[in-house]
Amino acid sequence: MQDKSWDERDGEVRLDEQARTKPITIYDIAKEAGVSSATVSRAISGKGYISENKKLQILDLVEKYNFRPNTFAQNLKSGFTKTIGFIVPHIGNMYFASVYYEFEKWASSHGYMTILLNSKGDYEVESKLLYSLKEKRVDGIVMMGGRMDAVELSDDYIREISEIKDLIPFVSCAAKSERFGCASVYTDDGKGVELLMTHLKSKGYNSFYMIGGGDEFYPAYLKKKYALEIGKKLDMKVNVNWLTPGMHFDYRAGYNGMKMLLEKPLEADVICGVNDYVAVGARDAALEAGLRVPEDIAFVGFDDIGIGTVLPTHITSVSPCYDIFGKKVFTSLHKIMQDNKPQDMKTTLIRPELKLHESTK
Amino acid sequence: MQDKSWDERDGEVRLDEQARTKPITIYDIAKEAGVSSATVSRAISGKGYISENKKLQILDLVEKYNFRPNTFAQNLKSGFTKTIGFIVPHIGNMYFASVYYEFEKWASSHGYMTILLNSKGDYEVESKLLYSLKEKRVDGIVMMGGRMDAVELSDDYIREISEIKDLIPFVSCAAKSERFGCASVYTDDGKGVELLMTHLKSKGYNSFYMIGGGDEFYPAYLKKKYALEIGKKLDMKVNVNWLTPGMHFDYRAGYNGMKMLLEKPLEADVICGVNDYVAVGARDAALEAGLRVPEDIAFVGFDDIGIGTVLPTHITSVSPCYDIFGKKVFTSLHKIMQDNKPQDMKTTLIRPELKLHESTK
Repeated sequence: MQDKSWDERDGEVRLDEQARTKPITIYDIAKEAGVSSATVSRAISGKGYISENKKLQILDLVEKYNFRPNTFAQNLKSGFTKTIGFIVPHIGNMYFASVYYEFEKWASSHGYMTILLNSKGDYEVESKLLYSLKEKRVDGIVMMGGRMDAVELSDDYIREISEIKDLIPFVSCAAKSERFGCASVYTDDGKGVELLMTHLKSKGYNSFYMIGGGDEFYPAYLKKKYALEIGKKLDMKVNVNWLTPGMHFDYRAGYNGMKMLLEKPLEADVICGVNDYVAVGARDAALEAGLRVPEDIAFVGFDDIGIGTVLPTHITSVSPCYDIFGKKVFTSLHKIMQDNKPQDMKTTLIRPELKLHESTK
Repeated sequence: MQDKSWDERDGEVRLDEQARTKPITIYDIAKEAGVSSATVSRAISGKGYISENKKLQILDLVEKYNFRPNTFAQNLKSGFTKTIGFIVPHIGNMYFASVYYEFEKWASSHGYMTILLNSKGDYEVESKLLYSLKEKRVDGIVMMGGRMDAVELSDDYIREISEIKDLIPFVSCAAKSERFGCASVYTDDGKGVELLMTHLKSKGYNSFYMIGGGDEFYPAYLKKKYALEIGKKLDMKVNVNWLTPGMHFDYRAGYNGMKMLLEKPLEADVICGVNDYVAVGARDAALEAGLRVPEDIAFVGFDDIGIGTVLPTHITSVSPCYDIFGKKVFTSLHKIMQDNKPQDMKTTLIRPELKLHESTK
């Protein structure tokens, strides 16, 4: 409801309305001062050049009419800033960039501006950014990846997130966000792994080897768990091996991991990267070794990073459906921002889709 | 100077300092109300749950002591929001994402938060975003790509940008920003083309074919102009042909353009994409047609999008040196934000570097 009343006020307003019935505007001030509205703006904001005399003359008028530019006045009245903070580890990762792009589209169309911050996946940076966003009085916060993905977390961290979400509407894009008691939007990884493996089985693949993650991160831990379960159900041989300690989720993890696998006779007919970056790295190592893809070995991954970029990876991938995902993150946050009551810790799982490319038969 | 005085104020401050010498803090209010500081924040911001009674009690104390939380008070006093607006066509393009990442690092470390907006390269969206940023009273604006890159522009557009930059510190990341009378940071494309072609010549390449752009965009128009000039100097055969009208700067432009070239005997020993997306598309079309890279045909591009992503393109590319570029965009804007006088329309050209990969000998 607050939002609505905000949207209705798109003219200039003044705080003290007793002296005049029609609110005074920046154009009234400009007319009386004999200057342009841009000059009035410069005088009020202190930004851009304006002569000292002119500035004082305008500020006198501003005081006389108790004029306030609308955004400021509205912020003061409503306490809302119409600003959202969005934290990602690195916007150069297409997964985060694609969710952000879709989210920002919805946020903008609802009159919100989004502050995008890179945490570099660093614990201290993330804490600082959360603190800054609180100071900035953003109306809501979205957090993707970073610490929230860690399987083991300190009580301090869980408390930090719980406190933030009690103060500011908060949506996490991470698995197992129940731990923080906050609302979350995430991909249904179980469904994704099932779609992928069922398709592979139907194409005659029988041995599935997942690489590139680490048990300490839920996005890898859960995919491993589901792959082992679904492999049993489908009677597929499943191997999960995080071959490259210290390298996770990136091209090097896939490239180096695949090189290690190729040192011995290959006991798999499909290599699954824990995400597409890993899958592309593994595929490149196989091509370099003279293997044919998909004839000798197939590759699959997660996140469909080739679509969002218009830079195909050629890897069969489980797509998070970025358009639906990004929209859902916004609508979930928007609902909390409008409710003005204790936050609902609802988890929304987005059903992924399988995108077929030439890395599989 | 304003910045400095801002940075020094990191405690809570109050506007009316005549009643007490020591500024009252949120903790004083919390103590007197017998609640936590988080509860005081909730009462003031109207966000998060708090009982109506408690809220009224706290707001009475806030009024009694004329307490203002620091960010709000500081904004009111200084007129600065410590917020920067950053407009890109699409954050899923690694060129924009890589500049943004580096920029945001510097902005954050100087206490600025950056609002990242996608214009989709759409003229109307861009205008709306500029207007919103003005309304939001950001301290500065950076604009990359989009309309600013167009060779032909309406007078209205040039006036729009000129007015914005008179009102708000403004830096463009586009060639030929002299048109707008604004400060700009851009890659030295002449130097980039020269580095690239000189290297190719030294490796024995003699025929250079550039594809994927359009004369209506400066980033393509200028590279074409430089390639023709430098080709003459180096005695290299240069052909520039934007083969795919309506498709520019993307994978499809390269892929489709290359397919068209392959319909006739190839009269070039190196294909240059107007950027890396185009080069990757062209390379893929060549591989699909059974050509060997670089033995039968070499590929080069611009922007080095493979490095930032940790997803190698394997394409020899002219790198904008994102770390230097992003830092320079911030320092240029920061200088204007601090100067508080008519903006300097300084153009800064960043010297690019050549990154060699396996798409060339």
